[in-house]
Amino acid sequence: MHNFTYYNPVKILFGAGSISKIKNQIPANSNVLFAYGGGSIKQNGVYEQAMAQLTECNVIEFAGIEANPDYDTLMKAVAICKEKKVDFILAVGGGSIIDGCKFIALATHYEGDPWEILTKPDHVATKAIPLGTILTLPATGSEMNCGAVISRRSLGTKLAFGNPLVYPVFSVLDPLTTLTLPTRQLQNGIVDPFIHVTEQYLTTDLNSEIQDGYAETVLRTLIKVGKDIVDGATDYDTRANWMWAATNALNGILGIGVDHDWAAHMIGHELTAETGLDHGQTLAIAAPQVWRYQRDAKHEKLVKFARNVWGLNNLDKNDLIDKAISLTEEFFHSLGVKTKLSDYGISVNKELFIANLFKYNPPLGENKAIDSEAMLEILYNMH
Amino acid sequence: MHNFTYYNPVKILFGAGSISKIKNQIPANSNVLFAYGGGSIKQNGVYEQAMAQLTECNVIEFAGIEANPDYDTLMKAVAICKEKKVDFILAVGGGSIIDGCKFIALATHYEGDPWEILTKPDHVATKAIPLGTILTLPATGSEMNCGAVISRRSLGTKLAFGNPLVYPVFSVLDPLTTLTLPTRQLQNGIVDPFIHVTEQYLTTDLNSEIQDGYAETVLRTLIKVGKDIVDGATDYDTRANWMWAATNALNGILGIGVDHDWAAHMIGHELTAETGLDHGQTLAIAAPQVWRYQRDAKHEKLVKFARNVWGLNNLDKNDLIDKAISLTEEFFHSLGVKTKLSDYGISVNKELFIANLFKYNPPLGENKAIDSEAMLEILYNMH
Repeated sequence: MHNFTYYNPVKILFGAGSISKIKNQIPANSNVLFAYGGGSIKQNGVYEQAMAQLTECNVIEFAGIEANPDYDTLMKAVAICKEKKVDFILAVGGGSIIDGCKFIALATHYEGDPWEILTKPDHVATKAIPLGTILTLPATGSEMNCGAVISRRSLGTKLAFGNPLVYPVFSVLDPLTTLTLPTRQLQNGIVDPFIHVTEQYLTTDLNSEIQDGYAETVLRTLIKVGKDIVDGATDYDTRANWMWAATNALNGILGIGVDHDWAAHMIGHELTAETGLDHGQTLAIAAPQVWRYQRDAKHEKLVKFARNVWGLNNLDKNDLIDKAISLTEEFFHSLGVKTKLSDYGISVNKELFIANLFKYNPPLGENKAIDSEAMLEILYNMH
Repeated sequence: MHNFTYYNPVKILFGAGSISKIKNQIPANSNVLFAYGGGSIKQNGVYEQAMAQLTECNVIEFAGIEANPDYDTLMKAVAICKEKKVDFILAVGGGSIIDGCKFIALATHYEGDPWEILTKPDHVATKAIPLGTILTLPATGSEMNCGAVISRRSLGTKLAFGNPLVYPVFSVLDPLTTLTLPTRQLQNGIVDPFIHVTEQYLTTDLNSEIQDGYAETVLRTLIKVGKDIVDGATDYDTRANWMWAATNALNGILGIGVDHDWAAHMIGHELTAETGLDHGQTLAIAAPQVWRYQRDAKHEKLVKFARNVWGLNNLDKNDLIDKAISLTEEFFHSLGVKTKLSDYGISVNKELFIANLFKYNPPLGENKAIDSEAMLEILYNMH
């Protein structure tokens, strides 16, 4: 096991009706930026529940943060935060809203060009507006980490940052808020956390018993609830287990002391940029092929995955690995999620894709083994 | 699943050599109370490693905090903290040192009688001295929670308190610091966290997939490393998995949203008070008999325990339960830990024991089913 530092101060308020607990978490008389997306929260009652908690605050609404939150949109919110002296941000929605609010929280107090927050890894931000979240879409884990991904469409880029200053002060996870989500978000909400886990789990075997067992638990839980969730199950415990699994997939606890991959994510981001496929859809295509290409480097972990996640036994190790990857693809299919580009009728220009992918990225994967040549094979298999 | 609040801001610095990271965690020029126990840290190099980090601080040593830390000892430290204007406490040792320092941290700034911190559940403490820890004995989990157990021998009592103000700011977990521990502390260091987990896991089945899977992971890890640890294995990953498992057993993540038992702990505390047996020794005697008495209430979870922790299959459910409890006792025996009072040549006066146990405690267990009559049967089986 590698040495690690673990720190996660987010207070989780979990369960039915938990929105009613946020009044005590936000200082009275705060100037609160109430940030959300398209307006689904006005249809499912979340907007009213949240507003009822803010009667002692001065609320400034900011609607319209889009999926893959855009720098230019967020800078409008930054201007409002400065003008209105916002001292608390309440992000209400999914990962895009929360990611966007993390950027707003830092950029408002940043003394240099806010673009540096995304482009200079050593940028020095020393202050952020405190942030609370009400999560309505389990998927990204942003509600319990300090990372964010921001797009800048005018420059054609999508960049990530992480900063401990933007750990949410609190996050409300009320499983009932997920009941009105459309099928496509339910599908992505299973696949996205599933691959978050495998990026941290299907790497080198470092005898990390706790981390591996926790990762297997989250994967088994997503497999157990996945089909029911996509089919619209309203059972409370099913929704609750999904929501807590998705948060655990990327709150840090699985990834400490182990190697990380993230190749599927880098490939997926490029694929979204070129094809417009959803993030979750791209992961379901890229990840299985990354595992197949890296089967030697990931051998021991793929065998563990087969045994402890898929319950396979009595096969030789290579057969275990083949079967586990196939079962994962079948699981995605059972959710209605495709695992080949051709299933979408899409074909990408391989040379151009690879040139774009490696323009800023070094070779990918926990062992940096995915270079241009490797990527050509992976991309071929993704079609 | 029940609703829950989860909050744990402790920064964990994990791994070989991590003591060297604490200089940056303690403000320069602090008046640091350096608190420890008997002096084993002077033999294993931990004292020197820690002191080397404190060259920019004013260090006040406080040695002699005993196992089951005593109120009167701790109040001497409180007087020193007041006199020397201590503004940081570094607790170096096991759970007793850390528990004691949590009390010192609160009591120094408490305006009323510090005894209230232990006796008045609604005591209002509003300030504590910041606390860091260097853990040298994996067992209690105190390094990553905000609870503590304090004895007051002059009154013959042992009481617990919890307060979010005493979450350690940081805790160093360096597996190498455990290499010089004596066998008895290794034994207790396996049994104690094992029962911490079962107190939160072997209760009502609430479909809490993540919590149950995490609990099973910690139990499987303790079973995997237990015998090797007690036999003095020096393998780094074995020590590291033990240390991280013991912390996870009581850092809150397993116990959120589920029912809690803690009957074995209450019985064990009384048994320690009457017989002088170690806390871990008493748990190995009490817990299996509590499970047997409560086998109906715990039925589903005991079956899960048999299948997912002990890998049992192909038996009817009652046989699974019997076998799982027997295997647990055999596991304790393999560590050299006894599971009957008679194995120690001890017999307690049952009526007196029960009278003492229930003097302050209501009926025990997650369903409050362990009353005097039940306790008589459990106590009989513990002999």
